[in-house]
Amino acid sequence: MGPAHVLTEAATLNRAAKATFDTTARIPVILRPADTGQVMAVLRIAGRYGLPIYPISSGKNWGYGSRVPTADDCALLDLSRMNRIVDFSEELAYVTVEPGVTQGQLYEFLQSRRSRLWMDATGASPECSIIGNCVERGFGHTPYGDHFAHVCGLQAVLANGEVVDTGFSGYGGCHAGPLYKWGLGASVDGLFSQSNLGIVTRLSVWLMPAPERFEAFFFRCDEENQLEGAVNALRPLRLSGTLRSSVHIGNDYKVLSALQQYPWAQMENQTPLRPADMAYFRRALNFGSWNGSGALYGTAGQVREARRLVKRALKGKVSALQFVDEAKLALAERFTGLFRCFSGWDLSRTIRLARPILGLMKGVPTEHPMESVYWRKREPAPAHADPDRDGCGLLWLAPILPLEGAHAQRVSKLASDILLRYGFEPMLSLALVSDRAIACVVSITYDREVPGEDRRAADCHHELLQSLLAAGYPPYRLGVQSMGSVPLPEGLNHVLQVLRQQTDPSGILAPGRYESQAPVLAKRLAI
Amino acid sequence: MGPAHVLTEAATLNRAAKATFDTTARIPVILRPADTGQVMAVLRIAGRYGLPIYPISSGKNWGYGSRVPTADDCALLDLSRMNRIVDFSEELAYVTVEPGVTQGQLYEFLQSRRSRLWMDATGASPECSIIGNCVERGFGHTPYGDHFAHVCGLQAVLANGEVVDTGFSGYGGCHAGPLYKWGLGASVDGLFSQSNLGIVTRLSVWLMPAPERFEAFFFRCDEENQLEGAVNALRPLRLSGTLRSSVHIGNDYKVLSALQQYPWAQMENQTPLRPADMAYFRRALNFGSWNGSGALYGTAGQVREARRLVKRALKGKVSALQFVDEAKLALAERFTGLFRCFSGWDLSRTIRLARPILGLMKGVPTEHPMESVYWRKREPAPAHADPDRDGCGLLWLAPILPLEGAHAQRVSKLASDILLRYGFEPMLSLALVSDRAIACVVSITYDREVPGEDRRAADCHHELLQSLLAAGYPPYRLGVQSMGSVPLPEGLNHVLQVLRQQTDPSGILAPGRYESQAPVLAKRLAI
Repeated sequence: MGPAHVLTEAATLNRAAKATFDTTARIPVILRPADTGQVMAVLRIAGRYGLPIYPISSGKNWGYGSRVPTADDCALLDLSRMNRIVDFSEELAYVTVEPGVTQGQLYEFLQSRRSRLWMDATGASPECSIIGNCVERGFGHTPYGDHFAHVCGLQAVLANGEVVDTGFSGYGGCHAGPLYKWGLGASVDGLFSQSNLGIVTRLSVWLMPAPERFEAFFFRCDEENQLEGAVNALRPLRLSGTLRSSVHIGNDYKVLSALQQYPWAQMENQTPLRPADMAYFRRALNFGSWNGSGALYGTAGQVREARRLVKRALKGKVSALQFVDEAKLALAERFTGLFRCFSGWDLSRTIRLARPILGLMKGVPTEHPMESVYWRKREPAPAHADPDRDGCGLLWLAPILPLEGAHAQRVSKLASDILLRYGFEPMLSLALVSDRAIACVVSITYDREVPGEDRRAADCHHELLQSLLAAGYPPYRLGVQSMGSVPLPEGLNHVLQVLRQQTDPSGILAPGRYESQAPVLAKRLAI
Repeated sequence: MGPAHVLTEAATLNRAAKATFDTTARIPVILRPADTGQVMAVLRIAGRYGLPIYPISSGKNWGYGSRVPTADDCALLDLSRMNRIVDFSEELAYVTVEPGVTQGQLYEFLQSRRSRLWMDATGASPECSIIGNCVERGFGHTPYGDHFAHVCGLQAVLANGEVVDTGFSGYGGCHAGPLYKWGLGASVDGLFSQSNLGIVTRLSVWLMPAPERFEAFFFRCDEENQLEGAVNALRPLRLSGTLRSSVHIGNDYKVLSALQQYPWAQMENQTPLRPADMAYFRRALNFGSWNGSGALYGTAGQVREARRLVKRALKGKVSALQFVDEAKLALAERFTGLFRCFSGWDLSRTIRLARPILGLMKGVPTEHPMESVYWRKREPAPAHADPDRDGCGLLWLAPILPLEGAHAQRVSKLASDILLRYGFEPMLSLALVSDRAIACVVSITYDREVPGEDRRAADCHHELLQSLLAAGYPPYRLGVQSMGSVPLPEGLNHVLQVLRQQTDPSGILAPGRYESQAPVLAKRLAI
C-alpha cells in the first residue's frame, strides 16, 4: 500500500474513533488499500498475526456508529480509495461499483453520461458509500428503495483472503453476472449483508429507467390517531403495485427538526419539547401530527390513474392531500400561497423540505436531512455537516412491523413514551419499505457536549431496544453499541458460527459485528 | 413413524426410481414423516449410522429427475404427508405451508375461503409441491412468478437434525416473521435453495391481491428473426414496471407440441420434424415462428394504459397482436371466427391453449402443459398424466441470458441446431423472468420406449449443457443427472463445502445434490 496509506497520526486516529454517541473502541492504525488484491493481502497478513481488521466503506454510518469498530484495537480498513465504477450498461440498467463509490459520485457519473437511469439514494449524505448502505440493507425512496434486493453479483473477500464471487459473477464469460441474482446452486449473497463473514469489494447495483412522468404527493393527519387509518388505506396501494416505492410518514417532531433547530428561546431553554407544546408549531408551520410523502412513477396515463387511486384511498383518512410535480414546486417556490390555491393546504412554510424530498424520490442525493442532527445544538449547522466532528448526538433504531395501522400506532406510542421519559423529542418516521412491512425509524437526537447526555441517550436506546424486542418488533439493523444485544435464534447462530470459525479461526474480521454475544434464543419448534 | 410409513415393497421402490430419462440410483426404502420432529429424528438416526437420506416434497420434479436421488442407495424421505397450511392472512397476503402442500391444494384452499388473493403456479401440474418448486427457484406466470423472491421465514432442518428458522421467523412473538425477508444479521435463506444444506419443512409464500382487471395478450412473429426486435421492444416495458409479470415466448415446435402429438402419419413415421416441415403446421394451425403471451394487471385504467403501451412497443415488431380477457375468451370459445373479427388474427385453432395459459396468468394450476410430454408417444396422453410411469422422455435445460434480443436469437439457434442434429424437435420457450434476464427453457422430448433414445437424449443434453456453458449461458437449475457437471466458482464452492462438512460430516443429506464434483473454476480476480 505504501506508507502514505498507512495512517498512524494520533489526531487522525482519534477523529476516526468518534461517532454520534459514546464509543470506547480505540483505533491503532488506518489502512487504505487501493484494490481487492491489497485487501486480500491485508487479511492474509492479519490472519497470520491475529490482528483484528475492521472494514469501512465511506465510514458515514451515522446513528449506527459511523466509522467506529465493534471491538477495541482493530486496524481500520478504509476502502474509500477503491472508488471505481467498473461497469455500466444503459440498456440493461445496472452499474458495477467498488466500496468507495459514493452516492454523490454515482449521481455525477449518471449526469455526466446524460443517462436516462436513476439511482436510489438514502437521505444520509452524498458522501455515503453505495456498497456500505447496501450491505447494511438500508433503504431509500424510489421503487428501487430496498437496496439489498437490487444488487447482484457480489465479490467478497473472506477473512482468510479467499475471494467469493456470488451468483453468476464468478463464471468467466457468463453474460448474466450483473443481471440474474440467484446463479446456480445455493445463493450466498445474504451471507455478506449485516455480517462479518466477508468484505464486499464489488457489486452490481440495478438502476431504474427514468419514468416519462413523476409526481410526488404529500399528506397530513392532524390527529395522532389518524395514523392507523392512513396506514391501512395505503397497504392495498402497495400490495397492488400502484405505489411502487416507499411512503414515508413522519411525526410532528420529525418535521419540526427538519425545518429548524430546537426552539430554545420559545421553550426558555427547557427540554424536552412536550407534545402539548407541539400543537403551537403544527399550527404555526402548518404541518400535521403525521406527515406523509410518496411518489408516482410512470407514463402520464399511469400517473394520472395512480393519482386517482391515491386520492380515493386517502379520502376521509387524512386531513389534507397535495400532489406536487417539478413544475408546481418551481412555481410555488416563486409565489407563496400558491399551494393554498390548489388545495387549501398551504405548504409554503414547509416548502424548503419539499425540494430535497422530491429529489430523493428521484434518487438525487441531498445534504438536507443531515441538518436535523444539529437539532439540539445552539449553533446552526455548518455548510458542510459533520455530526461526528461537531458533537451531534444521534442514535437510530428502526424496528420492523407489519404494514398495519394498529401496529404503527402501537410502536409509535411505545417509542414516544420512552423517549419523552428520558427527556428526548420522539422523532419518528414510518417507512413502508415493502408491500407488507414498515420500518419505523426512531431518532434519539441530542447534544453530546451537554454533560450526562451521552449516558442518558444510551440508556434510552437500550430501554427502547429491549421494549421493542419484548413487544415483537426487532430492528432491521444494529448500531455498533448494540451488536450482540439481540439474541439470534439458535440454529441461525450456529450456521453463522460454523462459517466464521472455518473461514476466520482467529476471529480477525470485524470481531463482534452482528455476532450473538447474548445467549441465543432457544430452538423454537411449533409442531 | 410407524410401519405404514416405511415403504419397502419392490414395486413401490422401483416406481419411485423411475424418471423421465434414464437414471441408475436405486432406492432401498421410502420414509414418510408426519412432521418436522420426525424429520429431525430421521436425520439424527441416519447420521449415527451414516445412511444417506434424499428428501422430496411431491417428487414431481419432471424433466429434472422426478423423485430420483442424486446418489445410489439413499432412503427417500417423502414429505408429502406434511401437507398442512399452517397460517394464512387475507390482509397481509401470505400463507405458511409445509412441503406436502401442492399447487392444487393451495388453490382449493383459497377458493374455499373465497379469498381475493392469487397464488402463482407453474405449468407443471396441480400435484406439484409449492415448497419443492420454491427451493428449486422455479418460476411462474404472475407478478409473483419469481418464486424464491416471494417466500419468507424458512424453517429448515440441517443434516445434524438442528432446526434453522430464517429471517424473523425464529424470534418468538415477532410479528413480521412471514412479512419481512431479511431479518437481522446475515440472511441465510438462499443457502436452502438449490442445495443439500437443509430440508425446508415450512415457509411463508406471499400472495397477490386479485387485481380489479386482468387482461392477457398474445402475439405472433411469423419470421424467426423477428425475435430479436420483439425481445428488445419488451425490455423497456419490463424495466418500467408496465409489464409486472413474465412474458413467455414459445417457438413453433413448442406450440405444436402443446396442440397435438407428433404427426406420425403426415411425417410417414420419420423423425425429427424438420424446420422446413414446420411451415405447413404454422399455416394450417395459424401460429408463428415465435408466439408470445403476457398479461396486464391493475385497475381498468391501469390495464387500458398498459394495453396502449404494449401495442405501441410491439407495433412493427410482431406479425399480430391480440388482447384477450375472460369475457372475450368465453365468447370465442362459443363462436369460432370471432377473433378474426377483432384483429384479423384467427386464434380459434389454438384456442384450446388459451384457456390454461390465461389460467396460469391468474395463478390457476393446470394439467394441460403436461400433455406435451406425450408428444412422441403413439397413444394419446391418458386422463391422468404420469410421465414417469408412461415412459415419456423429457429433459429440461434452462440457460439464463440477458434480456436482449441478440442473446435470445443466439441461444435459440444454438439449442435448435444441437437438438435437430440429435434428431429431436427443438421445443423452446423464452421466459422474461425478471426485468433484466431471460430463462430459455429447452425441452428434449422423446419416447423412452424406443430403444437407444435414452442414450441419445442424454448425449444431446450433455452437449447442449456444455455448449451453453462455453458460450456464457449457465442454466438456472440442474437435473439429477447433471449435478456436479457444472464447475462452481472456487470461493463459492469452498463456502458451501465448509457448511456441508460442519453440519453433515458423513455427507448423509442428498449427497451430490448441487455439489461441485467437477473441478472448480479457478479464482477469477479482475483487478
